[in-house]
Amino acid sequence: MLLHTIYLVAIVAEAMSGAIMGMRRDMDLFGICVVGTITALGGGTMRDILLGNYPLGWIAHPEYLLFTIGAAAVTALVARFLHHLRNVFLVVDGLGLVAFSVIGCDIARANGMSPGIVILAGMITGVFGGLLRDVLCNQIPLVLQREIYATVALFTGALYVGLLWFEVDPTIAPLAAIGAGFVFRLLAMCFHWKLPSFNGNGIRGFE
Amino acid sequence: MLLHTIYLVAIVAEAMSGAIMGMRRDMDLFGICVVGTITALGGGTMRDILLGNYPLGWIAHPEYLLFTIGAAAVTALVARFLHHLRNVFLVVDGLGLVAFSVIGCDIARANGMSPGIVILAGMITGVFGGLLRDVLCNQIPLVLQREIYATVALFTGALYVGLLWFEVDPTIAPLAAIGAGFVFRLLAMCFHWKLPSFNGNGIRGFE
Amino acid sequence: MLLHTIYLVAIVAEAMSGAIMGMRRDMDLFGICVVGTITALGGGTMRDILLGNYPLGWIAHPEYLLFTIGAAAVTALVARFLHHLRNVFLVVDGLGLVAFSVIGCDIARANGMSPGIVILAGMITGVFGGLLRDVLCNQIPLVLQREIYATVALFTGALYVGLLWFEVDPTIAPLAAIGAGFVFRLLAMCFHWKLPSFNGNGIRGFE
Repeated sequence: MLLHTIYLVAIVAEAMSGAIMGMRRDMDLFGICVVGTITALGGGTMRDILLGNYPLGWIAHPEYLLFTIGAAAVTALVARFLHHLRNVFLVVDGLGLVAFSVIGCDIARANGMSPGIVILAGMITGVFGGLLRDVLCNQIPLVLQREIYATVALFTGALYVGLLWFEVDPTIAPLAAIGAGFVFRLLAMCFHWKLPSFNGNGIRGFE
Repeated sequence: MLLHTIYLVAIVAEAMSGAIMGMRRDMDLFGICVVGTITALGGGTMRDILLGNYPLGWIAHPEYLLFTIGAAAVTALVARFLHHLRNVFLVVDGLGLVAFSVIGCDIARANGMSPGIVILAGMITGVFGGLLRDVLCNQIPLVLQREIYATVALFTGALYVGLLWFEVDPTIAPLAAIGAGFVFRLLAMCFHWKLPSFNGNGIRGFE
Repeated sequence: MLLHTIYLVAIVAEAMSGAIMGMRRDMDLFGICVVGTITALGGGTMRDILLGNYPLGWIAHPEYLLFTIGAAAVTALVARFLHHLRNVFLVVDGLGLVAFSVIGCDIARANGMSPGIVILAGMITGVFGGLLRDVLCNQIPLVLQREIYATVALFTGALYVGLLWFEVDPTIAPLAAIGAGFVFRLLAMCFHWKLPSFNGNGIRGFE
C-alpha cells in the first residue's frame, strides 16, 4: 500500500523529468507527454518485455497513463515556476529510483527468476526510463555517464534480495531496502560520489 | 480488402520516407533498406511487442518485407527524380497514417484491450515507425516536435472506437474514421496547424 | 560444442567493442559495463523479442552476463594496452559475426520460422548488438553506413539455410557456413569492399 503510493508519486516525478527534457528540445505538447510517459513507465515496460511478463503494467492499469500524461502536461504549463522545486524533485526522484528497484525485484521474483536476474530487473526498472528519455532526446544517456545512480538501484535490489534470503519479514524487507537505498542516494548526491571513468579516446578500430 | 490495399501502399510510402532519410545520412544500400523497413513496419512491431501479440505481422507475412525492401532499394536508385513526387508522398503518407491507426485499433481490439489502450495502439502503429527512423538517424523524432501528426492518429482512433461504440456498421466505421482522419491531416498540412510548445531552456537539474 | 566456445569468445569480443565505445563517450564504469553487455547480447535479445522466444538467452544463462560485464570491466582497466590487439579484435569480431548468424538461424529454425525469417534472424543476431551500442552512444549505427558487415551475416545465414535444404550433414553445415562467411568477412576487410551508397541530401519533404 505504502509502496503503491510511493510508486504513483515516483511516476509523476519521472514524467516531470521527461517533460522538462522534452521542452528543452522544443517538443510540442504531444512530444512532451510521450517523453514524460516513456520516462515514467519505460523502465517497467522494458523489464516486462525482457522477462516476457504480460500484460504490461500500464496496459493492465491504464490509469497510470493518466497520471503520467497529466503530470507532463501540467509540467509544461507551470514550468517557469519549477526551479523552486528542484530540491523537492531530486528527493522524490531518489525515492522513486529505490521504489522502482524494489517493485522490479518483486515482479521478477513473481516470475520465478534467479537472484541475479531479480536484482538486474530492479535496476532496469529504476534506470531504463531515463535512458529511453535520453535516447529520444538525442543525447548520451546520463545514467551511463555520471554519478552513483544505477549503483543505488543495484544496491537496493541486492539488499532487498539479501534480506529476503535471510527470511526477514516480507513487510519489513522492502521498507528497509528502500530506506537504506534512499539514504545511499542522498549521500551520493550530497557528496557527489562518482564511479570511476576511463579515457578511451586514443583507442581506434574496435567498432 | 480496401484497407489491406491501403496498408500495402502505406508501407511502401513509409519505406520510401525511411530510405530517403537514410540516404541523407550517407547510409549504404543495406542501411537504406533497414531504415526503410523499420520506418514502415516498426510501428506495428512496437505495438505487437507491447501488446504481446505474436507472431509479429511481418513474421506471419514475410512478403511485407519484400515490399519495404524493394521500395527502399528502388527509392535509392530513382531518388534524384523524387522531388516531383513530394506532394504525392505527403498525401499517401497521410492516408497511411490514418490507415495504420485503424489497423492498430483493430489488432488491439482483437486482443481484448480496453478503449483507451485501443486508441493508443492505433497511435503507436501510426507514428512509432517514423520515431524509430529518427532514432536510427540520430535526430530528435520529428513527430515529437512539430505539426498535428500524432494528433491525427489519436483523433482517427478515438473516432473509430466511438463509431463502433455507437454500433455503426463495422464495414462503414473504419472507412468513416479513415476519411475523417485523412481530411483532418490534409487540413493540418494546408494550414500548418501546430500543437503548442513550451520553452524549457531555463530549467536545470531535473534529469 | 565448438560453436558454443566460439560464441563465448565472440560475446567477450563484442563486450570489449562496446566498452571501448563507451569509454570514448566518457561513460563511467557502470555505463561501460552496460554498453558492453548490450553490444554483446543485444542482437540475440532483439531476435528473441521479435520471435517471441522466451526466456531470453541471458535470463536462462545468467553466467553470460558475467562474461560480458567482466570483459567490459577488464577492457576499461587495460584499455591503454589494447591498440596492440586491434587486428586480433577484428578477426575475433568477424568470427563472432558469422557464429552469431548461424546461432540466430538455429534458434529461428527451432521456433519453426520460414527460411527468409531464419536468415533475417541470423542477421539480426549478428548486427543489432552493434546497432544498439551506437544508438546508446548517440551516433548513426556504423553497420548502416559502411563496409560489407551485415552482408556477411546475410550470406552466412543464406548459405547455412541452403546447405540444410540440400540435406548436408547438420554437424558439417554450420561449420561450412561459418568458414565460408569468415573468409568472406576477411576478404571484405582486406579489400575494403563496400555496398553502394546514394546521396540524398537534395531531397526534402519526405519525412
